[in-house]
Amino acid sequence: MADSSSKRGKKFQGPKGTRDFYPREMARRRYIEQAWRNVAIRHGFDEIEGPTFESSDLYAVKSGEGILGELFQAFSGKSPEDVEQVMKTGRAPYALRPEFTPTLARMFADKAASMPRPTKWFAIPIHYRAERPQRGRLREFLQWNADVIGDESPRADAEVIAVAVDMFSELGLSSKQLTVRLSNRDLVSEMLAGIGVAADDISRALMLLDRRDRLPAGEFDKGCAEINLDPVAFIAGLDAVQKSMNDALAAMENGKPRPEIESDSPAIANLIGLLEALAAHGILKWCEFDFSIVRGLAYYTGTVFEITAGSERAIAGGGRYDKLIEMFGGPPTPAVGFGMGDVVLSLVLEEHGLMPDDAGLAQSLNQRPDAFVFAAGGPECDAALVPLVAEMRRAGLHARRSYKSTNKIDKLLKDAAASFARCAIIIDEGFSKGTVATKDLDDGTQHIIKRSDLLAWVRERRGVSKE
Amino acid sequence: MADSSSKRGKKFQGPKGTRDFYPREMARRRYIEQAWRNVAIRHGFDEIEGPTFESSDLYAVKSGEGILGELFQAFSGKSPEDVEQVMKTGRAPYALRPEFTPTLARMFADKAASMPRPTKWFAIPIHYRAERPQRGRLREFLQWNADVIGDESPRADAEVIAVAVDMFSELGLSSKQLTVRLSNRDLVSEMLAGIGVAADDISRALMLLDRRDRLPAGEFDKGCAEINLDPVAFIAGLDAVQKSMNDALAAMENGKPRPEIESDSPAIANLIGLLEALAAHGILKWCEFDFSIVRGLAYYTGTVFEITAGSERAIAGGGRYDKLIEMFGGPPTPAVGFGMGDVVLSLVLEEHGLMPDDAGLAQSLNQRPDAFVFAAGGPECDAALVPLVAEMRRAGLHARRSYKSTNKIDKLLKDAAASFARCAIIIDEGFSKGTVATKDLDDGTQHIIKRSDLLAWVRERRGVSKE
Repeated sequence: MADSSSKRGKKFQGPKGTRDFYPREMARRRYIEQAWRNVAIRHGFDEIEGPTFESSDLYAVKSGEGILGELFQAFSGKSPEDVEQVMKTGRAPYALRPEFTPTLARMFADKAASMPRPTKWFAIPIHYRAERPQRGRLREFLQWNADVIGDESPRADAEVIAVAVDMFSELGLSSKQLTVRLSNRDLVSEMLAGIGVAADDISRALMLLDRRDRLPAGEFDKGCAEINLDPVAFIAGLDAVQKSMNDALAAMENGKPRPEIESDSPAIANLIGLLEALAAHGILKWCEFDFSIVRGLAYYTGTVFEITAGSERAIAGGGRYDKLIEMFGGPPTPAVGFGMGDVVLSLVLEEHGLMPDDAGLAQSLNQRPDAFVFAAGGPECDAALVPLVAEMRRAGLHARRSYKSTNKIDKLLKDAAASFARCAIIIDEGFSKGTVATKDLDDGTQHIIKRSDLLAWVRERRGVSKE
Repeated sequence: MADSSSKRGKKFQGPKGTRDFYPREMARRRYIEQAWRNVAIRHGFDEIEGPTFESSDLYAVKSGEGILGELFQAFSGKSPEDVEQVMKTGRAPYALRPEFTPTLARMFADKAASMPRPTKWFAIPIHYRAERPQRGRLREFLQWNADVIGDESPRADAEVIAVAVDMFSELGLSSKQLTVRLSNRDLVSEMLAGIGVAADDISRALMLLDRRDRLPAGEFDKGCAEINLDPVAFIAGLDAVQKSMNDALAAMENGKPRPEIESDSPAIANLIGLLEALAAHGILKWCEFDFSIVRGLAYYTGTVFEITAGSERAIAGGGRYDKLIEMFGGPPTPAVGFGMGDVVLSLVLEEHGLMPDDAGLAQSLNQRPDAFVFAAGGPECDAALVPLVAEMRRAGLHARRSYKSTNKIDKLLKDAAASFARCAIIIDEGFSKGTVATKDLDDGTQHIIKRSDLLAWVRERRGVSKE
């Protein structure tokens, strides 16, 4: 220490693709977290959390060993077995979680017998992905998850979509800016089978369709040919169904009766159930059917959806995973949920001017100081500052103080206003006679009040300016 | 998928030493987080956060390569360079953060020029340690950090101690249950030098003293002998100073003038400054001097302290780290702070019966449902349930609903009470005529009210039961 303390050391940066949240960035993060939490709670979801890292097997069992090449992996530097395993195989015993669904399924499976049906859970976990950082995509990010477990009906699908939609409203976003795109994997699978794709090739077909926009055209065509999939005929068939579903949606949205849809497909019947459940929630105007969505994750069954905003990538995505809890050792348990990351959501809020400024954030987060206190008199006034501020804080008030040695009241009042405090408390000559000077920074009025009335006076300001 | 869906998979557990937070455990965690956040904010600290993993060098530079053997290390499974490095050396490029101070110092150093003096930051980071889990010690835990940066005076030390003490009061703990033990590394170093320990051996002496209770007696004595440290004489000298400082503390606590302490030691002068600053905050009754505390971390300078509760290990610990920001490339910047983990704090709260029950947690976290809604009539009543609940939620109310198909009102009212809802809303035969039945679950009164008055009536209940 003695050596290095005599000169500046090397500067460090946080790892690429991670973020340092200084107070301003943190207030924005908290603003989003607060909206997620408040809306989830008022929709009757209970909050849960799990470890930020899980056993690598949890992901490998579900998606194959290859998935570990997409993740951050971790090991105990203290465990000789861990270190040996990593050195020998390049595979670590743990992985930083890339998503929450496996953790949730593991937790539910473990206590399934004592869990209510439905169980409604939400979480605000941190996630990690080992990919190259780019706009809207980081290596460490927050994600809001909401899941309904134990209800196989489309009512549960509508319930998780409704909580997402209400959260957007809470943040000032509308159905003009966001669209919930609904699809159903069973429908897409049925139609693939209908045009001659073999049962064993369906998963591969879904994967190809999911990556269609990202694959080179030649590769997509080659893949289709290999599994006997005629993409043109397939998409034409899908579009026809999509149109009739969207016509039904439009009619219901306009208060007309739902047109009959002739079909003996269970997937279509399920989609009609979803349509009616969404209507009951009053959120049809946010929704449309888009059967090009199949979602990349292999565990999805039935309903899948994405929520998109203009040209940005999906702001949220989710669907049913009716087999996963059983796969993790639980009883057969239907489940549906979504994940919404903070990175794209923040970009969308900024783009629409919906991220509050610093004053708005202080107000929204209930972080406006009740009082900004300073001394502007002799040494007795200076000596009274810390005890007064300590007393206010002990009484539950949010008190900030000046650390400057100046006595210039104008300058200090400016600092008070910059802190977004509701009022300034000035310890001046009157203090020895039992009074303090105050200024209400919301209405500009100035007062001399009794020291003994101070706490009540400050509390009253809080009540007044709460609206 | 098709294969594994037909039978149950293997059950997984979370990694050893980590926790699954089901709703009840999560509510307890949120209760502690809320107290930490509220108290830090009312003391004028701003919240920050950093990445959960950092470059391994950040820790190795400060504490030597050996520290990585105590940490969870991480690497990108997608980066061939990362994987190659790990396989070759057993050392990964990243480490899961074991504490927050290096991240904080890195962040401050990076933006030091634009930061106010003092800067007051708090954080509620997740931390990781690779050690064997035991009572009060896990491999993944939360820690509350509060730091004052840019003020070298003991006033700043008192300020971080005051926020910790106020947090204990907030949770119902008192100075009867907790003690803030104050020490000063410079004083201990001065006294080691005074009895003949060479300057180069001081760090080693501090390390020995920190581990005294954990080392085998023979090893401690051998270590002392090697650096010319007579522990008996040393401790006798330290005890004498400690007694005079504690006498001064006791006198001031009883409102008497502070006795003169004859000394030309700068460390003693600093401790007297701390005493006076603690008196200004009105928290002397929580404090005592205990110079056996030197703290294990090498970066501490000057003031160090631990907060202990009975026989449990330290509930919090901290001190000055006046060289660290410079070591991480910033300008010379004094700083002081502490960390408080959630694991020991939870044990202490449980032990003293201070962790609220489920109803108390719902109240404290502002998570009581405003209404529990159910239908108890014909199919029209059932059909009205989702739209009514959706409308209440859109209006910002926390509405829960029954998912049971029963019509038995007594049973449903029991469910409503179990949810801690303020009131029950019953959609019955009156609904078609524009009324709903309600029951205030706090005072037991029942009412028939107009459908159009419902939202206002529920909002009013919230106002009434807020106290």
